[in-house]
Amino acid sequence: MTEHPAAPAAVPGRIGRSVDARDSRVAPLDTFHPWFKECAERAYTDVRPIPLDELAGWTTDPVTGNLAHVSGGFFRVEGLDVTVPDGPVPHWTQPIINQPEIGILGILAKEFEGVLHFLMQAKVEPGNVNGLQLSPTVQATRSNYSRVHRGRPVPYLDYFREPGRHRVITDVRQSEQGSWFYRKRNRNMIVEVTEDVELLDGFRWLTLGQIHQLLALDDIVNMDARTVLSCLPFSGPTHRPAPGPEDDSFTAALLRSCHGVGGALHPDDHILNWVTEVRTRSEVLTRPLPLNALEQWRRGEYAITHDSGQFFELIAVDVRAGGREVGGWTQPMIKPRDGGVVAFLVKSIGGVLHVLMHALVEPGYLDVAELSPTVQCTPRNFDHLPDAARPMFLDEALGAPADRIRFDAVLSEEGGRFYHARNRYLVVETDIDAGFSHPDFRWMTVRQLVDLLRHSHYVNIQARSLVACLHSLTGQPPVV
Amino acid sequence: MTEHPAAPAAVPGRIGRSVDARDSRVAPLDTFHPWFKECAERAYTDVRPIPLDELAGWTTDPVTGNLAHVSGGFFRVEGLDVTVPDGPVPHWTQPIINQPEIGILGILAKEFEGVLHFLMQAKVEPGNVNGLQLSPTVQATRSNYSRVHRGRPVPYLDYFREPGRHRVITDVRQSEQGSWFYRKRNRNMIVEVTEDVELLDGFRWLTLGQIHQLLALDDIVNMDARTVLSCLPFSGPTHRPAPGPEDDSFTAALLRSCHGVGGALHPDDHILNWVTEVRTRSEVLTRPLPLNALEQWRRGEYAITHDSGQFFELIAVDVRAGGREVGGWTQPMIKPRDGGVVAFLVKSIGGVLHVLMHALVEPGYLDVAELSPTVQCTPRNFDHLPDAARPMFLDEALGAPADRIRFDAVLSEEGGRFYHARNRYLVVETDIDAGFSHPDFRWMTVRQLVDLLRHSHYVNIQARSLVACLHSLTGQPPVV
Repeated sequence: MTEHPAAPAAVPGRIGRSVDARDSRVAPLDTFHPWFKECAERAYTDVRPIPLDELAGWTTDPVTGNLAHVSGGFFRVEGLDVTVPDGPVPHWTQPIINQPEIGILGILAKEFEGVLHFLMQAKVEPGNVNGLQLSPTVQATRSNYSRVHRGRPVPYLDYFREPGRHRVITDVRQSEQGSWFYRKRNRNMIVEVTEDVELLDGFRWLTLGQIHQLLALDDIVNMDARTVLSCLPFSGPTHRPAPGPEDDSFTAALLRSCHGVGGALHPDDHILNWVTEVRTRSEVLTRPLPLNALEQWRRGEYAITHDSGQFFELIAVDVRAGGREVGGWTQPMIKPRDGGVVAFLVKSIGGVLHVLMHALVEPGYLDVAELSPTVQCTPRNFDHLPDAARPMFLDEALGAPADRIRFDAVLSEEGGRFYHARNRYLVVETDIDAGFSHPDFRWMTVRQLVDLLRHSHYVNIQARSLVACLHSLTGQPPVV
Repeated sequence: MTEHPAAPAAVPGRIGRSVDARDSRVAPLDTFHPWFKECAERAYTDVRPIPLDELAGWTTDPVTGNLAHVSGGFFRVEGLDVTVPDGPVPHWTQPIINQPEIGILGILAKEFEGVLHFLMQAKVEPGNVNGLQLSPTVQATRSNYSRVHRGRPVPYLDYFREPGRHRVITDVRQSEQGSWFYRKRNRNMIVEVTEDVELLDGFRWLTLGQIHQLLALDDIVNMDARTVLSCLPFSGPTHRPAPGPEDDSFTAALLRSCHGVGGALHPDDHILNWVTEVRTRSEVLTRPLPLNALEQWRRGEYAITHDSGQFFELIAVDVRAGGREVGGWTQPMIKPRDGGVVAFLVKSIGGVLHVLMHALVEPGYLDVAELSPTVQCTPRNFDHLPDAARPMFLDEALGAPADRIRFDAVLSEEGGRFYHARNRYLVVETDIDAGFSHPDFRWMTVRQLVDLLRHSHYVNIQARSLVACLHSLTGQPPVV
């Protein structure tokens, strides 16, 4: 039997070559920032908070207070009643975004001079602190691409709507923020083409090595780009030969963790059994509530806020943009009150880097719990809660000495739904014992995470961002 | 790094040995039927339809008509409004069982004389046509094992509630009938012990070879046993060396399909992409409805029935049983109006057996669609529908000549919820072209199905039964 001609068998090795390509003659990195600046000048955006009552094209249901677009498309803002009997906070209510449409986050890939390049878009989103960020080739809800808002067609969309004609490298639906979205999933796709592709204004081919350098900068590579990149088949013999067991430098341990030839503290079946155990043991009961019936949440002129002043606000914005499909619109957005911390604590165990993963229950997940970073929280939200509710390992992540911090950048969350939502993403080496035992935590290798990323419902959006950050650290040559 | 001491690395080979053990000195097959008959005499059951109003311990909600147990446990019977815009029937309403509790279906395994044996229970269920069937060691809802009905404790349950002390061979939550259950999942577990296990009345150790022979008989191995057995890690070099490519007998092709050293028509990634594509493209919208507000369904004295007389009835039964945890009870049950047909059409492609799998949308699935058999239907339900709605391949499955039928038995569905629900399970060799192309069908190897069975949400309950049936066919020596 021959495999299907489009089988991506040879992809991992080519991913490695792209990672090692720290620069590209097709689009040199030293021209990136001038190009990006020029895009920013053309794709201006003006975002202004407006009263909730002035949302045009959106209606507030007179009975429930829920917000919906008049087309029935895009998303709705509703209320949710959440009970997690064994959680630190066993019951609460909150606004949540209900967006049942499955959107497409797609990156087009193509070889230039033998190296895979990825077509990235300089895209304005109203919630971005800095206007423009680097996004996937296509980032479209079904409402976008079915033209609910009658804007311009989405460029390059056909490559992802008829992927059968091309080599599909990645195609998996993944969840997004489980505390702000109710069961939202987007289709994460990477499609490789061999044909000529017209390069439109605002788009640019980049190698993984180039993207990885940009990922180390604050607020450049957007959340949608990070989640798609995290789903690359980034395990197995990706580029250089596996380092030897005598070498325990961080990068070598990371490469062994990606290579996946043994070395995992817990066999794959035990990881799956653990996920089954957590999802069976953990109860989370959710029930839709009218947005106007939430306890401790109030609708003011400009925002729906929590009485404590914490968590997030639901605001309305008026957007005037030059570089997008339509010239102007208004929409509701979630505005977090404070920045968050998202951290992988990592440790070389037997020469193989392991990440301490946390099986976290969030109300918006379709299947109870997903694997999340060691630390994922907004520290200020815990100010008014008992000490027992303080997230484990938060202090360790924030207090790590500089020489133990392997990745540290402030990255933005989805700028289409969240207003100035930013988290500090950290990869920190830890002294936690390899024998550390807790029913909600497990040490896992990168290869094990990459394997689970082929399926839905396993690895949450924050952990996927950090997986992309870990990948970016493989590009440095081993210190040995 | 050493793997965890309980790593089931050596399990596949031992599964093969158990398959080849067509008999056992521990519990010879020729004593099975006398033992089973004796169990049947002791574990008598008397099941009698009663008026719905006479359900004791169950309440009919005065507003919605929904049925619930007074304890709040077990399950509820509610209404569901279903819209599948692209389906042959785009909209309907129906009663459905809502059982949010995750139960345990667990089989205990232990080696005797070097061969894995599995502890099976002769268990009475009120819905069984023949009273007694062979079930897993433990078959318990949370209400059972938390003693909502104050019956006797569930024997052997502790092995599955504290599996960490033992070798876990299988532990995965799987869905059940998506047309009768709303998002029900049970935890399918196989736990291996080395310690002595007391053999209680009504339990018996059996090798896989013995179970496989019993599976070929009508109505002996129950649905719960079949689904757990299907989740065995039944791929890789399970027992005998892979047959050579020159050998294209059915059994040899089946063994190659289990072995999984290449030979799949579609690479694994393409299968996953296809599942993503189906689940993105297919829309299924469900909405709870009051049971008394369903279109075309009426509550009579003894049953809730559809005006057409088709599909199923919701009935009430009074159960008097001797061999169960409690002596008597009443409960609602689903009673299908006719028997169904569940068939794998299979074909050797390049010497490797492939199954034509159907990605099927059913309203009760958590994630849109699951991989189902080539044919899965109740033929009579299609009598009043247009020809376009007639299931593909049904006539081919039913009309196959005897020498193309590799498995043919009538097997029962869950006897705890369904009354006399039986399907004819078939494995049929087909002449459908290997190049057959349809967006909802794909040729897959057994190894590919077994890989997906490590995860939830992929392979439906009917297909899992047939996977167990396929496994049972590997026990015959190759014809070569």
